Amino acid sequence: MAIKIESHQNKIFKRVKGLNLRKNRDKEGVFVAEGLRFISEIPLDWPVELFLMTEAFAEENGVELFENRAATYILSEELFSLLSDTENPQGVLAVCKKQKEDREKIWLKEDSFFLLAEELNDPGNLGTVIRTADASGVDGIFLSKGSVDVYNPKVLRATMGSIFHVPVFQNIALDDISSELKNRGISLYAAHLKGECLPYHLSLQKSCAFLIGNEARGLSQDAANLCDQWVKIPMPGQAESLNASIAAGILLYEVVRQRLR
Amino acid sequence: MAIKIESHQNKIFKRVKGLNLRKNRDKEGVFVAEGLRFISEIPLDWPVELFLMTEAFAEENGVELFENRAATYILSEELFSLLSDTENPQGVLAVCKKQKEDREKIWLKEDSFFLLAEELNDPGNLGTVIRTADASGVDGIFLSKGSVDVYNPKVLRATMGSIFHVPVFQNIALDDISSELKNRGISLYAAHLKGECLPYHLSLQKSCAFLIGNEARGLSQDAANLCDQWVKIPMPGQAESLNASIAAGILLYEVVRQRLR
Repeated sequence: MAIKIESHQNKIFKRVKGLNLRKNRDKEGVFVAEGLRFISEIPLDWPVELFLMTEAFAEENGVELFENRAATYILSEELFSLLSDTENPQGVLAVCKKQKEDREKIWLKEDSFFLLAEELNDPGNLGTVIRTADASGVDGIFLSKGSVDVYNPKVLRATMGSIFHVPVFQNIALDDISSELKNRGISLYAAHLKGECLPYHLSLQKSCAFLIGNEARGLSQDAANLCDQWVKIPMPGQAESLNASIAAGILLYEVVRQRLR
Repeated sequence: MAIKIESHQNKIFKRVKGLNLRKNRDKEGVFVAEGLRFISEIPLDWPVELFLMTEAFAEENGVELFENRAATYILSEELFSLLSDTENPQGVLAVCKKQKEDREKIWLKEDSFFLLAEELNDPGNLGTVIRTADASGVDGIFLSKGSVDVYNPKVLRATMGSIFHVPVFQNIALDDISSELKNRGISLYAAHLKGECLPYHLSLQKSCAFLIGNEARGLSQDAANLCDQWVKIPMPGQAESLNASIAAGILLYEVVRQRLR
């Protein structure tokens, strides 16, 4: 039976409310997935701790499917809106465990490809990068220290569920990962306005990785220096730069193109 | 000499405040460019009606360069913040005239390419689409009825100045423009999840145009039916769709790639 929460002094309520802070998500190793569409993307084998829903949502959608999977709590619209990150809440959220991604496992595949990013700060941008990387079939995403938290609700929403599909590693020291790539013979390409090579001239059928920079500043010199080659996306028009997620999309899709049979 | 505005009853102040509504921008044929970076993108021959700046901005940057170009008004931070669309205003904005784009002119170029979009609703998305289209060297952008206004401050900010570089036509009837393209022998390709052709297999060296759909719904059946061919961007990963601006970027950059010498 679903359990009712009737006060904002309730322990579960207070705990979920606390999860809008990164430090609490980090400490507990969980995150909040909100909305029916997003929740429907949670894979069956992904650990869910609990569901919270409004009375209206429970009446319309039933609670059984949720209860069968994890503890399910029902609360008023008013209380729910205090937990929601959206303006028009759909009335359902899940507290999910973060997946402990196995960094060794991602190296096992032959001809893999990876995306690295330095200090991406815009939540919508990072979410779109993850969604795009997922679509392209990337084998892993590495985010440097100083990036926005991937479990920030706005990032999660923009991933459209891709957070459940692609291994994302946070708080990565870029010099560590670049050494690791080097040791494994995987070329690391920087997306750089001063690059001299076009993406179309790279050999991307073998394992490779791309590093993209911050939305406003681009790549730091230190980060750019870690790369084997600087790649410039051509801009025959007048814009001086591309949005970070667009740059990622163009580079990752060049891998897709080159690997089509 | 710059003129001081000291009350929110001031006519200029009230007029500029009114420009946050689309109907007033439409009626007056002007829009607001905010922030120093954005203003620095205004081409020299673009008509500017007036500048508004805070006392602090005027002290730090001087007013001469602005005054030489258009009437310049100075007001307090408090009044300025009532006009600003950003949380941390830089203290300067310009009221610019909309450019009357000449629809005949864009057909003059040989081997041109165009982007059409149906009901793009997200301001950041539309701005990024325009910026990306500019970078790729597109010759014109056509937005269907029901799209967010291109002169919405959030759209403008996301264009990063590209609004000054690319002709954008709003409130377009898609059946009109598709007929016009057909009459001119320009192929129109729909970005469509049910497409059977990959963008890499199209011949994009001759004139062409792409039509992308709404962020959530994709293309309507009616709009898709106007196109010569449906194109599918491959998704070897698990994501079910791409963000509209990413899809536009991948398609437009396939034109760029095919046209490189």
